Amino acid sequence: MQIAIVLFDRFTALDAVGPYETLGRLPGAETVFVAEQPGPVRNDSGSLALVAERALADVPAPDIVVVPGGPGQTPQMDNRVLLDWLRAADATSTWTTSVCTGSLLLAAAGLLGGRRATSHWLALETLREYGVEPTGERVVTDGKYVTAAGVSSGIDMGLTLLGQIAGDRVAQSVQLLTEYDPQPPYDAGSPEKAPADLVEEWREKSRFVLK
Amino acid sequence: MQIAIVLFDRFTALDAVGPYETLGRLPGAETVFVAEQPGPVRNDSGSLALVAERALADVPAPDIVVVPGGPGQTPQMDNRVLLDWLRAADATSTWTTSVCTGSLLLAAAGLLGGRRATSHWLALETLREYGVEPTGERVVTDGKYVTAAGVSSGIDMGLTLLGQIAGDRVAQSVQLLTEYDPQPPYDAGSPEKAPADLVEEWREKSRFVLK
Repeated sequence: MQIAIVLFDRFTALDAVGPYETLGRLPGAETVFVAEQPGPVRNDSGSLALVAERALADVPAPDIVVVPGGPGQTPQMDNRVLLDWLRAADATSTWTTSVCTGSLLLAAAGLLGGRRATSHWLALETLREYGVEPTGERVVTDGKYVTAAGVSSGIDMGLTLLGQIAGDRVAQSVQLLTEYDPQPPYDAGSPEKAPADLVEEWREKSRFVLK
Repeated sequence: MQIAIVLFDRFTALDAVGPYETLGRLPGAETVFVAEQPGPVRNDSGSLALVAERALADVPAPDIVVVPGGPGQTPQMDNRVLLDWLRAADATSTWTTSVCTGSLLLAAAGLLGGRRATSHWLALETLREYGVEPTGERVVTDGKYVTAAGVSSGIDMGLTLLGQIAGDRVAQSVQLLTEYDPQPPYDAGSPEKAPADLVEEWREKSRFVLK
């Protein structure tokens, strides 16, 4: 079983590392970070670089595809090399997954048409432009496509898929070993729960960033 | 404000990336990954490499020190270069923090003596050997020392400290933007909550790994 996690310039680190640290613990699986070119890939803040071990072209048929998001997703929306790779990899994958705005890349590759999917709450409505039905759920499974909401939701996605593939006990082991017993100091993790004016402030700011 | 996140061979990726993605969003802060030597540093699984931008010696006085854990913590317990750096950095830091078994490194450096601290649940009792009082809380603040439990708890630690430094609104913004509204598919994230036989199984296995 091979898991390929796609990296691109200005990805969001936790989008990639959440599924890596959970789903990537699948017994017997090989996880490989891939990018258009191998080598260090910088995140959205520019202060973190994760190494892509292999080029996309060298990992043509992973069993599981994981596509993170981040501000760098926008310029990838017309990157033919990446979109062609996603289509080809998806043709033989068992699971095709995304975190955050990674679902927009799957959508742009034409993989989510007519399906239910999720994304970062600020990007959710953009899915409609690709014929995808957005849902505010944290983890959405539609056929072999598993999409997760913003950034940290990749942890929940990874555990969910791990349980589905390897069974509850393996997933519970990973949850126990990563001590994933969340106790956030605030209850502001979704637009429904955060202070309304804060949500509005970020919706306003995002108008200049997204699209 | 400078935040230094320490890397060493066989660290656990999420230990480092959790605080990075939360505390690292502190407005105006510069976050830098540091290691004994700059360059790619491999994690516990070997399939992930995060780039240390600078050598420990080149970042002598960060305002905030973050020490992750992982299986690679054990051989660092008598690494004089790292322990000396921790002591020197701590002498001028505003906050000295850890995730997972990173607290054992702070303890080995003599920084936690007589204090309350936490660690990965499998390593908690080891703190006593360094005169540290272990507590099962997820995030423990004692003076300027903030320690977090296993792996994923660094996210809660990062948000907690972010709120303390920059105020609730900044921390809530980061929680909202990282969509940290956890919905784990299982309730097995602590030894109190996981199935008892699973906890016992991992305690037994860890006897060969820890110490």
